[in-house]
Amino acid sequence: MGVLTAKNPDYDSAVRDSFSRQPFMETVGADLTHLEPGICEISLAKEPGLTQQHGFFHGGLVAAIADSAAGYAAFSLYPANSTVLTVDYNVKFLQPAQGFQITARAEVIKPGKTLFVCKADVYAEEAGDKTHCLTGLFTMMCLLGKQDKANLGREKAST
Amino acid sequence: MGVLTAKNPDYDSAVRDSFSRQPFMETVGADLTHLEPGICEISLAKEPGLTQQHGFFHGGLVAAIADSAAGYAAFSLYPANSTVLTVDYNVKFLQPAQGFQITARAEVIKPGKTLFVCKADVYAEEAGDKTHCLTGLFTMMCLLGKQDKANLGREKAST
Amino acid sequence: MGVLTAKNPDYDSAVRDSFSRQPFMETVGADLTHLEPGICEISLAKEPGLTQQHGFFHGGLVAAIADSAAGYAAFSLYPANSTVLTVDYNVKFLQPAQGFQITARAEVIKPGKTLFVCKADVYAEEAGDKTHCLTGLFTMMCLLGKQDKANLGREKAST
Amino acid sequence: MGVLTAKNPDYDSAVRDSFSRQPFMETVGADLTHLEPGICEISLAKEPGLTQQHGFFHGGLVAAIADSAAGYAAFSLYPANSTVLTVDYNVKFLQPAQGFQITARAEVIKPGKTLFVCKADVYAEEAGDKTHCLTGLFTMMCLLGKQDKANLGREKAST
Repeated sequence: MGVLTAKNPDYDSAVRDSFSRQPFMETVGADLTHLEPGICEISLAKEPGLTQQHGFFHGGLVAAIADSAAGYAAFSLYPANSTVLTVDYNVKFLQPAQGFQITARAEVIKPGKTLFVCKADVYAEEAGDKTHCLTGLFTMMCLLGKQDKANLGREKAST
Repeated sequence: MGVLTAKNPDYDSAVRDSFSRQPFMETVGADLTHLEPGICEISLAKEPGLTQQHGFFHGGLVAAIADSAAGYAAFSLYPANSTVLTVDYNVKFLQPAQGFQITARAEVIKPGKTLFVCKADVYAEEAGDKTHCLTGLFTMMCLLGKQDKANLGREKAST
Repeated sequence: MGVLTAKNPDYDSAVRDSFSRQPFMETVGADLTHLEPGICEISLAKEPGLTQQHGFFHGGLVAAIADSAAGYAAFSLYPANSTVLTVDYNVKFLQPAQGFQITARAEVIKPGKTLFVCKADVYAEEAGDKTHCLTGLFTMMCLLGKQDKANLGREKAST
Repeated sequence: MGVLTAKNPDYDSAVRDSFSRQPFMETVGADLTHLEPGICEISLAKEPGLTQQHGFFHGGLVAAIADSAAGYAAFSLYPANSTVLTVDYNVKFLQPAQGFQITARAEVIKPGKTLFVCKADVYAEEAGDKTHCLTGLFTMMCLLGKQDKANLGREKAST
């Protein structure tokens, strides 16, 4: 895979702005910790409220963080005036997400006109160890001419 | 598919007890609304903190709810003294999860000795309409001789 | 899911014509045994050359038949002057495909403008028994303005 | 990922022997072209009978070759007296498989006791170009105490 280039010169602020408008990412305390064209990393610190019955990060949440990272890896390559939609993902849980923090790293494998295929891996960190918790493949859609900011849904939801 | 039977006569309390020990499910406000052997439903009411940038339920969360429902559909068929682990899931997003509530309904398609294949569908409700948001396939593992209650991870996490 | 309607009044001949131009389907001896808008069935009789090391139908072939059925279930809903492309599939192997014949039944779960989500199940028949071998989810793309007949690739391949 | 080690000192002949007993791989003309512990490559030359309606390699066959490569990548790490079973796979089609030959390269991402997670990529070669056609994730099961050679199914099938 060659180096990917961004079509939107303002991709960095477009991605960070969109991420900041995702209330669920704020609820769980996720941070966008790295971004370059076609690559995105999101980190999440352990909180008791984010765990499952054995005290690990909840698997569905681990996958959700990977999905967000994959979505923004794709979105970083989109032209201006577009938005991103997850079409599909497949995640494989490799080991329990045990540690004080998880980080999802996503990369675009194949950029297209409409569909972008990404992979993402999640690692958990604990006492100097890094555990590979999840690997997954994601298909993202590029919706042209749709403002990522539109937020019509949120207005609706507040009525 | 014939009717599935539970090996654990106390499957109902085993499932509900495990669900109640998932802090993340409590954080997001999920309710286990229906349970029978091999079938589980989980509902989630809309809160502003559960949405993405367009005001819909966050897709990763929708998938996480489906994963939990699939896990408990499988767990309801497990023998006593076992626990459930998600091996893999594939989710397809059919429509935005727009509405005041989502409900995931999961069913075991194929029970095995070690692996249980489940499907789950998520529907969003709004103003009398029911929208099919997500469909997915899940592989669950049955870990025999492991207490679902053990919570070693949580103890570890608190040190 | 309501009843699906075909946009192309000649969907039946469009699908059967496309199927007949798939040399690989002929190589393995697959038959398109049922078609209605959004639903397609393909059957395959056991031949020694189609098996794996334990004498069952080769799993990759079972999945390939399911993929073809899903593709034509979607294609049956496409407008004229379009072609179908598989974007992605996820298949779960439930039991060995043991028997004299397998049949894949695919249905469109969610028709879209560009993307069509389908499910498919494969059953093996032996001595009056029907075994559920595979279940899967498929995403198909509708390419408008591309002749399914074009065959540019085959011309290229023959030079 | 560290370097993977084979538990079976005869892994090379165990894999090649199993591959040679897959009639379907012979039917399509697939060759096992590279093997080391946890890594397997399978190549397939273009024949008119292996194509779809546009003259490319049939997508389902491309995925089947990837599945075989993944299965043998996993099997190379299994102890003696075991056999391999595909549990699940998810494949994403990146570009048409256009060219005179395809090669699937599979690697074990996470070896386990029972389940092995693999990834596989398929490349098509044409006129010096290499095209990335498919990427996928696979879950393989290790069945201990089952002879890969047993062939009970084939005997059954011939009665």
